[in-house]
Amino acid sequence: MIGIFDSGVGGMTVARAVEQVLPQRSIVYFGDVARTPYGSKSPETIQRYACQNTEFLLDKGAKLIIIACNSAASVAGDLLKKKYDVPIIEVISPAVKLATQKSRLGRIAVIGTRATINSKVYEKNISDLRPEATVFSQQCPLLVPLVEEGWLHKRETKMILRRYLHPLKVQSVDTLVLGCTHYPLLRHLIEPRIGAGVTVIDSSLAVAHELDEYLTKRPAFADTLSTSSTTHYYVSDRTETALNTAQRIFDRPVDLQQVSVTG
Amino acid sequence: MIGIFDSGVGGMTVARAVEQVLPQRSIVYFGDVARTPYGSKSPETIQRYACQNTEFLLDKGAKLIIIACNSAASVAGDLLKKKYDVPIIEVISPAVKLATQKSRLGRIAVIGTRATINSKVYEKNISDLRPEATVFSQQCPLLVPLVEEGWLHKRETKMILRRYLHPLKVQSVDTLVLGCTHYPLLRHLIEPRIGAGVTVIDSSLAVAHELDEYLTKRPAFADTLSTSSTTHYYVSDRTETALNTAQRIFDRPVDLQQVSVTG
Repeated sequence: MIGIFDSGVGGMTVARAVEQVLPQRSIVYFGDVARTPYGSKSPETIQRYACQNTEFLLDKGAKLIIIACNSAASVAGDLLKKKYDVPIIEVISPAVKLATQKSRLGRIAVIGTRATINSKVYEKNISDLRPEATVFSQQCPLLVPLVEEGWLHKRETKMILRRYLHPLKVQSVDTLVLGCTHYPLLRHLIEPRIGAGVTVIDSSLAVAHELDEYLTKRPAFADTLSTSSTTHYYVSDRTETALNTAQRIFDRPVDLQQVSVTG
Repeated sequence: MIGIFDSGVGGMTVARAVEQVLPQRSIVYFGDVARTPYGSKSPETIQRYACQNTEFLLDKGAKLIIIACNSAASVAGDLLKKKYDVPIIEVISPAVKLATQKSRLGRIAVIGTRATINSKVYEKNISDLRPEATVFSQQCPLLVPLVEEGWLHKRETKMILRRYLHPLKVQSVDTLVLGCTHYPLLRHLIEPRIGAGVTVIDSSLAVAHELDEYLTKRPAFADTLSTSSTTHYYVSDRTETALNTAQRIFDRPVDLQQVSVTG
């Protein structure tokens, strides 16, 4: 069983990508809808929540954890790796690796929530892999609410995106990392606005490919994972917005079970 | 001590109004920033949080509680009144009373978060006081994020407001209730868009006047309240956004103390 958690249902873009890349694997997903968004919370609070979410997934039989939340990955990734005995894969490193490989000129842009951008985790990781690269970061706090409202084609969303992307565009970036799991749902608006010459890196797809590679290299461990291809979706609050966003991601209704994880 | 709680710092517009109307009263405020927003959460979750917040304020010496959060007032107001022995005043009834008094034609509009509007609490309360009135409700889920970003003068905010207010305007409403404590910060944009003939009711000011009236009628109880005119602001997470929004509300830096209320 592969455990995936996110601050809400945005991380289901990771679950969707894992289903595409590894259709035979069973997944248990936890979305912390009751305490969403993490992006505006302090590092200490995010760390506490990340531990509770991980323990919930381990209880449900997860043998590997994917942190499908950029805010949690950036401030709680190291803590979870130290604290728990199972492999922890997070959404940041795979996207960073891909971005540093694909960028021709080393001019890499990253967009994300306030917490992710303020943590400078993308800048640090990119400069570790490619020290001469220049990273341009932009916080985009309104994109998650816009996605969760389903405003995926509205004029205001396009204008707000233009406002966020303009400072990156004038810097002639050649690669743009979508540093938040909600953003793949806006890819159709982001690509034309950032420009045709810019490679867009979807962190959800990148993490699914990283998982595939990880399991291929460790066949004995991979054999311990169930291959029933079942998926269970749990949330800490079964809201109308969560159900609608989940349906938007999978293009079909998704059954969300409500559970409590505070502890 | 007057206790005031909200899901975040938006309820500080109520604290600000109480300071204006009753400058000699001391206030203890709790903003549940770690779990904000309540507007998108289920009624059961909001009720649990409202009880924890109330108990925190009682522990701090509050003798009267103001629920300065429309979402909590609409789904947890009755529960708190039954469960606790102190007077509970919430933001909804005072605004409803004022709206039904001021409306000439009985065409009353209410704007609020998804939870507040879905609860139909304004419609029910208005029709109790003025059965022939027609209520037009509009959920405006993007306004809180826009206020918290400080986008109080941006073109996108004006366009989004126009989109939300247009269906109310074509109904020729004569009164508009700001059914969320964040919205007074957008009053300068709302008034010109809804039209000069429409009376705008600020629920934060309405609740402060209700409190004044309550204490004037009960001088013995009012005497038991401290008159040191001190104010303590507590939050469950001391974020950059919370500090900025608080400063925007009071037009000066506000000292926010971080506390934990989960229990």
